[in-house]
Amino acid sequence: MIKQLTNEELQQGLTTIPGWTVNDAGKLERNLTFDTFQAAFAFMTHVALIAEKMDHHPEWFNVYNRVKIELTTHDAGGLSKRDLKLAEAVNKLV
Amino acid sequence: MIKQLTNEELQQGLTTIPGWTVNDAGKLERNLTFDTFQAAFAFMTHVALIAEKMDHHPEWFNVYNRVKIELTTHDAGGLSKRDLKLAEAVNKLV
Repeated sequence: MIKQLTNEELQQGLTTIPGWTVNDAGKLERNLTFDTFQAAFAFMTHVALIAEKMDHHPEWFNVYNRVKIELTTHDAGGLSKRDLKLAEAVNKLV
Repeated sequence: MIKQLTNEELQQGLTTIPGWTVNDAGKLERNLTFDTFQAAFAFMTHVALIAEKMDHHPEWFNVYNRVKIELTTHDAGGLSKRDLKLAEAVNKLV
């Protein structure tokens, strides 16, 4: 079982991942727009490799040059350090 | 401007793309489940290359081993032959 973040840990964590918010579903969310589909999918491919290595995967939606990413930890029943870590890794790419 | 399919063309087209339905939003939709995230993303990568070549892109959602694909043609204000063609190409992969 992975531990859910405390509210304090979450608030602290959010300061380290600009662009991410907690959405109505309680998930970390970031929306990105690229110049082209190629650029959007290249980004997704990069995130996919990182996610697979972390064994922590996003819920994400893509249409053309837009990508919406949502993060949560099912095993924690909410947000965990894993989500912050993946969000940080995404931010390093963009 | 790309022509929208007539209802007859759509009904005929649907018979050639098993697994696809027209959803409430009037888009072609197919839901696929793979064994792993690796398999799901490998499939998405293959579709991405085909879509880019066709210059016709899906709206899609992925979480772990599941992929939901929706097709529509914005320039036609609805479904067009392009959607049928991309749906057929997806079916050849799965």
